[in-house]
Amino acid sequence: MATRTFKFDLLARQGSARAGTFATPHGTILTPVFAPVGTQATVKAVSPAQLKETGASLILSNTYHLYLRPGADLVAEHGGLHSFMQWEGPMLTDSGGFQVFSLSDTRKVDEEGVTFKSHIDGSTHRFTPEVSIAIQEKLGADIIMAFDECAVPNDLAYNQKSMARTHAWLEHCVAAKTRPDQALFGIVQGGVFPELRRTSAQFVSSMDLPGVAIGGLSVGETKEQMHAMLEVVDPLLPQDKPRYLMGVGSPEDLINGIMRGVDIFDCVLPTRLARHQAAFTIHGRVNLMNSANARVMSPIEETCQCYTCQHFTRAYLRHLIVAKEMLASTLISIHNIQFLVTLMKNARNAILEGTFVDFANGFLTGYTTKHKEHA
Amino acid sequence: MATRTFKFDLLARQGSARAGTFATPHGTILTPVFAPVGTQATVKAVSPAQLKETGASLILSNTYHLYLRPGADLVAEHGGLHSFMQWEGPMLTDSGGFQVFSLSDTRKVDEEGVTFKSHIDGSTHRFTPEVSIAIQEKLGADIIMAFDECAVPNDLAYNQKSMARTHAWLEHCVAAKTRPDQALFGIVQGGVFPELRRTSAQFVSSMDLPGVAIGGLSVGETKEQMHAMLEVVDPLLPQDKPRYLMGVGSPEDLINGIMRGVDIFDCVLPTRLARHQAAFTIHGRVNLMNSANARVMSPIEETCQCYTCQHFTRAYLRHLIVAKEMLASTLISIHNIQFLVTLMKNARNAILEGTFVDFANGFLTGYTTKHKEHA
Repeated sequence: MATRTFKFDLLARQGSARAGTFATPHGTILTPVFAPVGTQATVKAVSPAQLKETGASLILSNTYHLYLRPGADLVAEHGGLHSFMQWEGPMLTDSGGFQVFSLSDTRKVDEEGVTFKSHIDGSTHRFTPEVSIAIQEKLGADIIMAFDECAVPNDLAYNQKSMARTHAWLEHCVAAKTRPDQALFGIVQGGVFPELRRTSAQFVSSMDLPGVAIGGLSVGETKEQMHAMLEVVDPLLPQDKPRYLMGVGSPEDLINGIMRGVDIFDCVLPTRLARHQAAFTIHGRVNLMNSANARVMSPIEETCQCYTCQHFTRAYLRHLIVAKEMLASTLISIHNIQFLVTLMKNARNAILEGTFVDFANGFLTGYTTKHKEHA
Repeated sequence: MATRTFKFDLLARQGSARAGTFATPHGTILTPVFAPVGTQATVKAVSPAQLKETGASLILSNTYHLYLRPGADLVAEHGGLHSFMQWEGPMLTDSGGFQVFSLSDTRKVDEEGVTFKSHIDGSTHRFTPEVSIAIQEKLGADIIMAFDECAVPNDLAYNQKSMARTHAWLEHCVAAKTRPDQALFGIVQGGVFPELRRTSAQFVSSMDLPGVAIGGLSVGETKEQMHAMLEVVDPLLPQDKPRYLMGVGSPEDLINGIMRGVDIFDCVLPTRLARHQAAFTIHGRVNLMNSANARVMSPIEETCQCYTCQHFTRAYLRHLIVAKEMLASTLISIHNIQFLVTLMKNARNAILEGTFVDFANGFLTGYTTKHKEHA
């Protein structure tokens, strides 16, 4: 097993779209894959048993949140996150970088790291590449991320400086890492600037790590800019390593990402939307609170195999929402996660069968992003 | 099956404690039994699949709530509550009487019924015995309840008048009932007055219904008064019918009820406590928010077979509570329900084996009700 661990097998390509397998200590991930997010050591409103039933294989947890609460030491006492939150499958932790830059109250970046104040109690903390790796080693995920700076995407001078710092921090992370049962991914940054993205893709690829992440997208740039950046880095990244597009995203973003060579995605979207009563369908999002659903005797989606659609009508789900019952968030989360997991499975099968272009075009044509007009 | 339906078989007695079976169209209930409450067509925070896993057989839903929201017609369009909320097992609905008297904003009782204002939107509604039965026939539970008045327990003159009204309403309910696949239970009232309770027990027993409920307890009287009223009615109720003590209760109340001849219980307590972070153990309640649990690596209860105790430490549950994660309510609800369901199973086995007195004394001795002092 040791030789197989973290091996990526590319089984098929169609254009830039890839189907593969990525072996981890907690199981082999079939790619493309979507990872639901368990920010605070739980995918919100869903038990691990329910999550497993959706077909989810890989999940993500957040280093920043778990470091602050309950603390990495308590998780380590449990033998790591897998045991703490009772997820037996593959798991990924981010580095904390993104949250330090987006959530913490005040922060000061220097060449060695970031000093920040907790968004919970205002206490002062400092993350460096070494600290982030040490925390992630205590958390014990299969895939861990290099500590990076996620800069605002449109400032060229800042992105140049920030990218150089992210590259230097990657070298620190590689040097700090001690656990052989964890795969460290480097992160490509560079904002919306093709030349920076090229430089970053080449640098990160040169580190010969088990996988490469693409960061700093889905943070304010346009969809066209995101697609352009993916197209810039795609030919420069190694074919024999998985590529992970961080924090993305919506169904259409996933399909567009696969078309541009991405293998792994994560996003809070399916569970966050569920808590706001919105569900994915192949025709677009629907808001189940909409009174049009009050007497609908069919499920969210007739063809969906999820627990929710196999059992409950839209009328029942809307009743739960109106009555402010917690079960609404649980049932819609289950559906939304299984929707994205299934979309990835179908995309994978299409790549393996050589029909991905038709599959992707068919999906994108049928799926409207005009969410607010759709019942 | 038609001849078996609603047949109660008394399998064993020990003192007043009884072990039996009660056949319903959706399955046979082993008694004594505890029914979790699904007020608004969901046992709060728990999916039907999770609920089934706890071993719960019978659940209760509330006519008042479902009549107001989503309305009995929508439930009927689904083919009834079983299909609407996807609970395949036995189900009981109350009559709405208790909620009309305890929840609605203003109300006027007359000899024919009660006019009240919705606690949701202030709209005016009227329940009579006929209306309550009509709603419960649309909801379609296996066991339905007569429309009664639940009076304040200590006013003799009022309880005399109210009991007479409840008896008259029972006759109206019997006359109004049309569905042969539903068992109507009459309700014994009479406050804390032995003579009234005797009269009521005799009257309700004389109606020869498939079961008898005992109402108006656990509504402000003392434990001693509750026990005394149960002891008054026990010898007067038919041995060949199940007895249902409404809205009770805590683990010690269940054991004390069984000792006094009760077969069926329901209460919101296990799920309500769970949402306030409190869990049952054989030694009493524990509050998992208590900092003493912050680093406890063992489950709520070592010997418990529930999903929660088989997977999660107290430290993890406390983390979920501190982090305000919904999964906390789900996991603690699962434990609390399974705790009461298992307590009833163990009591039943003890009655069948003739060891109930020791079992009950052992439980009551070990279980402290000094909740606040216990970590």
